[in-house]
Amino acid sequence: MSASTFPDRLAAACARHGRLCVGIDPHGASLAGWGLDDDLAGLERFSRGLVAVLAGHVGVFKPQSAFFEAHGPDGLRVLQDTLADIADAGATSILDVKRGDIGSTMQAYARAYLAPGAPLAADAITASPYLGFASLAPAVEAAAEAGRGVFVLARTSNPEGAAVQLAIAPDRSGDAVAQQVVAAAAAANRDAGTPLVGLVVGATLPVLDIDLTGFDGWILAPGIGAQGGRPDALSRLFGEAAPRVLPSASREVTAAGPDPARLRERVARLSDACAQVAVSS
Amino acid sequence: MSASTFPDRLAAACARHGRLCVGIDPHGASLAGWGLDDDLAGLERFSRGLVAVLAGHVGVFKPQSAFFEAHGPDGLRVLQDTLADIADAGATSILDVKRGDIGSTMQAYARAYLAPGAPLAADAITASPYLGFASLAPAVEAAAEAGRGVFVLARTSNPEGAAVQLAIAPDRSGDAVAQQVVAAAAAANRDAGTPLVGLVVGATLPVLDIDLTGFDGWILAPGIGAQGGRPDALSRLFGEAAPRVLPSASREVTAAGPDPARLRERVARLSDACAQVAVSS
Repeated sequence: MSASTFPDRLAAACARHGRLCVGIDPHGASLAGWGLDDDLAGLERFSRGLVAVLAGHVGVFKPQSAFFEAHGPDGLRVLQDTLADIADAGATSILDVKRGDIGSTMQAYARAYLAPGAPLAADAITASPYLGFASLAPAVEAAAEAGRGVFVLARTSNPEGAAVQLAIAPDRSGDAVAQQVVAAAAAANRDAGTPLVGLVVGATLPVLDIDLTGFDGWILAPGIGAQGGRPDALSRLFGEAAPRVLPSASREVTAAGPDPARLRERVARLSDACAQVAVSS
Repeated sequence: MSASTFPDRLAAACARHGRLCVGIDPHGASLAGWGLDDDLAGLERFSRGLVAVLAGHVGVFKPQSAFFEAHGPDGLRVLQDTLADIADAGATSILDVKRGDIGSTMQAYARAYLAPGAPLAADAITASPYLGFASLAPAVEAAAEAGRGVFVLARTSNPEGAAVQLAIAPDRSGDAVAQQVVAAAAAANRDAGTPLVGLVVGATLPVLDIDLTGFDGWILAPGIGAQGGRPDALSRLFGEAAPRVLPSASREVTAAGPDPARLRERVARLSDACAQVAVSS
């Protein structure tokens, strides 16, 4: 793992398979759509089945931890197996856990998901900065050491998010909270000498109300497809940052299953659309 | 569980044992202090041993999920057992997970920790509002249904927290983000007809820079003892809200172990100090 860095592995996976990120959201309704019960066996068949069918067709998978935690300790074991399957498929995993804490507690999260030998190791995790971006430092440090990455929530598409993310920071900069997250992520990447800190920015924002100038990392953009986001809108939304956007689709992909041919066809179509996401002229 | 509500159970536990909340933070250094290895067996002996020794002496325990997640799926099983031990001891559990997400994902977290039949059921969990307080609604609804509670991060003591928590909300109210969390929690409790939404406010803030007037729920105040917080400072810090503060101590308690008599003596001393936390004259 430490033989390569997360930005290198991600770039290689995207070069091979495109930038489409397939979200693994084993929600009860999605399991039912595959004829599966909303139990541990259904969780496993859906999650590991999805990776098996799409291995070699997708560069990035994003399992959502909440749906595994909902099944208790055994659900975490399925998550562990799913993460191993993704690695075996030569793809990159971004584990969506949105953890955020301070000091030794944040270190413990890093030990769980990022550090060398982590029991639930992913190539990268998502993190939440309500306790301040700087409180996430133990995760960034563990990621640097292990050649992994951290995607920090910056600006999400849900309407309730603006109340926090667009609040004006108390430091006289006049910048919004989300803008300060962008700046802190850019600074962390400069310090690390490699863009191991990415951002989460919603794909369905009507306009991009933060400035990504100077940020050289990856941007995870959830919400493609069933949640309303369209790949062809991403070039306009993200401007010059568009080539570093990872458009993420979950139900839009899995709704085509469980038939393997239809799943791969859906992924190919979305991947083609995402390949067009570039700097708009 | 639904036979009673979380606020009722918490009030009864505090009436019996006082308001001291004992944090269960199975950090490697704490395990070493008890002569335990930082492995699964050490995790279990520390966490369940602490509850066994303090059963009947403490009304509220706060296990920190990160230290259990660090041991993978088996660590979650120890957490599950520890939560069951707390319930068996007649005490109240506040599981510190700081989860925060939207829609069906937040529902999945509620299913994991709060809903009837949750595999990792706690009396209450902590939640993080970076995606907006309103995004936590599925957790609040599940808690209401199951007679459980949610403590939402408002204002934390770590210096990095101010950048987000004291940012000024974009709605022309002029209120800080943390102040809006207080208002939203108060409104949620009015809607629910019972104070099932609590707040997390750091015990080591030099001054309380949010106004708790009108908030009638419980206030979890971590940081007593080893982190620098003193029970006798809480009356001054929290003013009229002081009688609803749950002072939380972790290392300050566990550093007295593993000797049972010394652990109980430490808890008795801290409980006495916390019993003095009332409205300052």
